[in-house]
Amino acid sequence: MSSISEIISTDLAEYGEIKDQIKAIKKFVSKLEVKEGKKFELKKFKTNISNKPFEKVEGELLLELGLKALSVFQDKFYAEGKRSFLIVLQAMDAAGKDGAIKYVMGGLNPQGVRVTSFKVPSKEELSHDFLWRHYKALPAKGEIGIFNRSHYENVLVTRVHPEYILNEHIPGIDSVDDVNEKFWENRFKHINHFEKTLTDSGTVILKFFLHVSKDIQKERLLERIEEKGKNWKFSSGDLAERKLWDNYMSAYEQMISATSTKEAPWFVLPADDKWFARLCMSTIIQNCFDDMNPKYPKLNLFEEAEILKCRELLLKD
Amino acid sequence: MSSISEIISTDLAEYGEIKDQIKAIKKFVSKLEVKEGKKFELKKFKTNISNKPFEKVEGELLLELGLKALSVFQDKFYAEGKRSFLIVLQAMDAAGKDGAIKYVMGGLNPQGVRVTSFKVPSKEELSHDFLWRHYKALPAKGEIGIFNRSHYENVLVTRVHPEYILNEHIPGIDSVDDVNEKFWENRFKHINHFEKTLTDSGTVILKFFLHVSKDIQKERLLERIEEKGKNWKFSSGDLAERKLWDNYMSAYEQMISATSTKEAPWFVLPADDKWFARLCMSTIIQNCFDDMNPKYPKLNLFEEAEILKCRELLLKD
Repeated sequence: MSSISEIISTDLAEYGEIKDQIKAIKKFVSKLEVKEGKKFELKKFKTNISNKPFEKVEGELLLELGLKALSVFQDKFYAEGKRSFLIVLQAMDAAGKDGAIKYVMGGLNPQGVRVTSFKVPSKEELSHDFLWRHYKALPAKGEIGIFNRSHYENVLVTRVHPEYILNEHIPGIDSVDDVNEKFWENRFKHINHFEKTLTDSGTVILKFFLHVSKDIQKERLLERIEEKGKNWKFSSGDLAERKLWDNYMSAYEQMISATSTKEAPWFVLPADDKWFARLCMSTIIQNCFDDMNPKYPKLNLFEEAEILKCRELLLKD
Repeated sequence: MSSISEIISTDLAEYGEIKDQIKAIKKFVSKLEVKEGKKFELKKFKTNISNKPFEKVEGELLLELGLKALSVFQDKFYAEGKRSFLIVLQAMDAAGKDGAIKYVMGGLNPQGVRVTSFKVPSKEELSHDFLWRHYKALPAKGEIGIFNRSHYENVLVTRVHPEYILNEHIPGIDSVDDVNEKFWENRFKHINHFEKTLTDSGTVILKFFLHVSKDIQKERLLERIEEKGKNWKFSSGDLAERKLWDNYMSAYEQMISATSTKEAPWFVLPADDKWFARLCMSTIIQNCFDDMNPKYPKLNLFEEAEILKCRELLLKD
């Protein structure tokens, strides 16, 4: 029995009517995974789903249930302490990364979650290999690590601005001409090796691309400018990157194609409707937890005997 | 107007009836602060309040409101990005530290919170001064840092087991005899200097001692042993420390007395009832946020003109 069903059948019995919707969203998200070895074309993934399986009001209820389900899973996952969980978020500006973290992961116990937002690398970070700062931020056993932007920026923003690579002072890379196809292929390999080391060591990895349309980005950027409480979030740099939209889409397509693996898959979330993108993300994470099936640790016979001895001592205390 | 009142008067109008209880808990917690310069005696602080200002059911509603109030404050605090917030938790085993984090801070956006649980120091940590590992875990501007155990372990567990100090290889400290009163006075000074540097640089510090009675600890440890889902949390080492209860209480008393300052005060929370300790903690943190009064950043005239230019560009896009 999946944990969300458990929750519905106990705490939230009043929401029992929503089982069909749970089935529908589970079915829907199964189509969002980019399968290893299959040709990937970004244009085949929609930013907007016109015939959603249900209305926003039901979706928000499901998201509410999702917060509780993730919190139940996290408690067991933390107690078990055997695996780490790494969640990677990538997207264009204003696609909804921050909101997704707040509304999908906001029910978790902060003890056991670690969000790292990667900004422009510092001088110290640039003086190491490109994975170094990401390595340091990885979640420990029992922890959930969320990368808000990630090691993938090293094949996205740098791909669109190859001159940034020169700041890394890599032997043999002396001019932008050296930052060629082979360079990027190599970098994809490095990333795949990195993730393979993690998954082989007990880290579970999910990667999400919040796929937003250029028109919706425009709407959201205008909103940021026009709403007083939001305008501090706007950066004029966002406009410069927006001009390079097609270059970014091409970089995303190649990156996702080269790095979506069975063990560390990419999911392309339709992100023109924030609530729907969040619900997809929540559902995919719940499915993953369901497969992991974390459990509270069980004592072995020796430990069992040991604590019974302690019980005797305490009772006499 | 305090933020919790704001919330009640808007989102949660149905809870308007609870204003008297909010007043009562605010009044109650004002007595829990250990005032700098006043003689401090731990025995004057109760572990159990028999005449609480209201019932558990009302308390839980207040705690629920507190989760929302803290989340509203955090959003502004993060956006403002000018100050850091450090919350220190200390207590004997089973006093409720983990639960307090989960139920007081569980409504926060994980982006912007960082919980660090300090365990036995590693070899690398011992090869630095005693504040080093705590320094590294401090919250950045806009972040809330929670220390689950903290730099204060260096004047608590080591005070009760002074032989542990020898692992730090401090010049002039060659035997347990060197770990004398002067040593501890010095260490208190180091801690006060450390915290002064932080508060002067824009970190707000609150320190909580969850004050539980020896009898209630016994009950809770027995519970841990007897409940299947909880018994993995029990460690037989807890019993050894329990035997040293009086030594610990004396170490806590001297530590709190020496390090409660106006800028970084200690609060002694009556922790025999978990819900009440959590409510006190939540209220104190809310009061502190109220005093800070964080605000969303406002653009200056230059920035205002700049984003209006961007708006024009976007509209033409």
